[in-house]
Amino acid sequence: MKTFRDTNVLITGGLGFIGSNLAIALANEGANVTILDLLVPEYGGNWFNIEPVRDCVEVHLGDIRDLELVSTLVTGKDYIFHLAAQVDHFLNRCDPFPDLDINIRGTVNLLEACKHYNPEARFIYCGTRGEYGHVCHLPADEETPLHPTGLYELSKCTGGQIALLYHSLYGLSTTVLRATNTYGPRSQMKHARYGVVNWFVRLAIDDEVLRVFGDGLIKRDFLFVDDCVNALRMCALSEAACGELFNVGVDHPTTILELIQTLIEVAHSGHWEYAPYTPERAAQEPGDFYSDIAKIQALVGWEPDVPLDVGLMRTVEYYHAFKPHYW
Amino acid sequence: MKTFRDTNVLITGGLGFIGSNLAIALANEGANVTILDLLVPEYGGNWFNIEPVRDCVEVHLGDIRDLELVSTLVTGKDYIFHLAAQVDHFLNRCDPFPDLDINIRGTVNLLEACKHYNPEARFIYCGTRGEYGHVCHLPADEETPLHPTGLYELSKCTGGQIALLYHSLYGLSTTVLRATNTYGPRSQMKHARYGVVNWFVRLAIDDEVLRVFGDGLIKRDFLFVDDCVNALRMCALSEAACGELFNVGVDHPTTILELIQTLIEVAHSGHWEYAPYTPERAAQEPGDFYSDIAKIQALVGWEPDVPLDVGLMRTVEYYHAFKPHYW
Repeated sequence: MKTFRDTNVLITGGLGFIGSNLAIALANEGANVTILDLLVPEYGGNWFNIEPVRDCVEVHLGDIRDLELVSTLVTGKDYIFHLAAQVDHFLNRCDPFPDLDINIRGTVNLLEACKHYNPEARFIYCGTRGEYGHVCHLPADEETPLHPTGLYELSKCTGGQIALLYHSLYGLSTTVLRATNTYGPRSQMKHARYGVVNWFVRLAIDDEVLRVFGDGLIKRDFLFVDDCVNALRMCALSEAACGELFNVGVDHPTTILELIQTLIEVAHSGHWEYAPYTPERAAQEPGDFYSDIAKIQALVGWEPDVPLDVGLMRTVEYYHAFKPHYW
Repeated sequence: MKTFRDTNVLITGGLGFIGSNLAIALANEGANVTILDLLVPEYGGNWFNIEPVRDCVEVHLGDIRDLELVSTLVTGKDYIFHLAAQVDHFLNRCDPFPDLDINIRGTVNLLEACKHYNPEARFIYCGTRGEYGHVCHLPADEETPLHPTGLYELSKCTGGQIALLYHSLYGLSTTVLRATNTYGPRSQMKHARYGVVNWFVRLAIDDEVLRVFGDGLIKRDFLFVDDCVNALRMCALSEAACGELFNVGVDHPTTILELIQTLIEVAHSGHWEYAPYTPERAAQEPGDFYSDIAKIQALVGWEPDVPLDVGLMRTVEYYHAFKPHYW
């Protein structure tokens, strides 16, 4: 069975939420892991995230907007996981350019670097279910029309589409994922501008009030980060995944209210109440969403494994143990 | 009836193909027309294009990538037609950045300038049917899934999606068009990297061989530039068009072979022969396409008016008369 043992791996955004969990998994599997991360304040990068593998991964503090740097770093890598991004869903309201420059241009930099210096590398891009925006039919499969509700979501979408163009036009071995709401250890816990589940986890741990916007009946599929990491791993190892786009989610939905009630039960702390939407949240709120994952099940054999209550329990335990590094 | 008389109009790319035809139409209607154009060599800008209205339009040679310049120019305008673009369909093969910087970032510059300095302006963005790429159902309506086959097409698509976001998020009065293959007077005639119909017109006028790639049975809808200009005009004057996306095309298809045979008949010169696709053309060739224009007919009342043989005749006559300015 194919593994990452002795392979050379680059993870952009490897000090961030999903990137650091992936870095730990691959380092433990015997990969030589190189991380590129800019540690932009508030974007989620955190040295403590890679504590378990700190001595056996190579970290470069640098910017995917720097074409020369990424050209150096992609050279010689077997696998490139591109997880670095501007991730604040609302930043575009005051400044639209980081979405363009980091999420689109930064992605093109990596792809150009691969095209010129490492066209054989497997390139995995992690996008978001937010790219679909408002959807008419649920669960949403990969052919669902795209109506992203903000520039963050649109820029992630464009980045993924470009990654697939580099497959069809230049033969690069790219795969694009659209991950649904992901939660778990190693997400930033300082603000609520993205990563809503983890923000609720913080409020529950602090025994505060969890505000349910609207009626709380909006449906989502919440994915535990280990399942997301496993999707990234399995897609990278799969020949069938080259040039493909996959939803990565959970094939049954949970309401926000159920999420919050489960979380409060698991954490043994926190309270909830209803609250009205803020205007900016209302404008970018895409409504119900859950993923059709038949394609990745069929082609790659991946499916989620961690039930919501178990995932929330592990998340609460992690932040209880390491609160000073995240609060 | 609402007209452009005494209104202030900015046309980016106003020395180019569609932009100059629009500038002439609006200046003749009594608008105060300001043009912003960079005259990038090979992009189609040409001083001679605005010869009929040269004394009554204001021209700024400048770059939509310059946020300060566009902020100055959008101020005080009633209508902004954004037609400036990187238009070479194949440039991305050696350099992907002009597509990103001009077509995406340049568009965001204009929208940001409007948001801050002129949120009341009507903003019309001209995209391309190339954004659809390979389509399954014809004629293609505006909900057709997008599979752009190159970075030019994708970047135009992203630009248009951002223009619509500035409507939904910030209330700007944006309208996005997707124009099909447009031909007619004032297109560049120096190379074949875009504007295929006009390139065939040149070959016919020069009594050369017109090469039909493949079997010539690919279907397209060919739009005469005056019809395209009229769609831009009518959308700008229509309240119902705010925040909407419209196909601008012809609701019945023509094969490439029919186009070429009609052209040779009209021009009384030129010959044709079959030729194989070059690999780069084959990779970016999206196949059959023609537009469903029911939406713009219903909401705006526009439909194409100029039959193909008449449009080709006028095009041939124009370039016969002004060949030295274009060859």
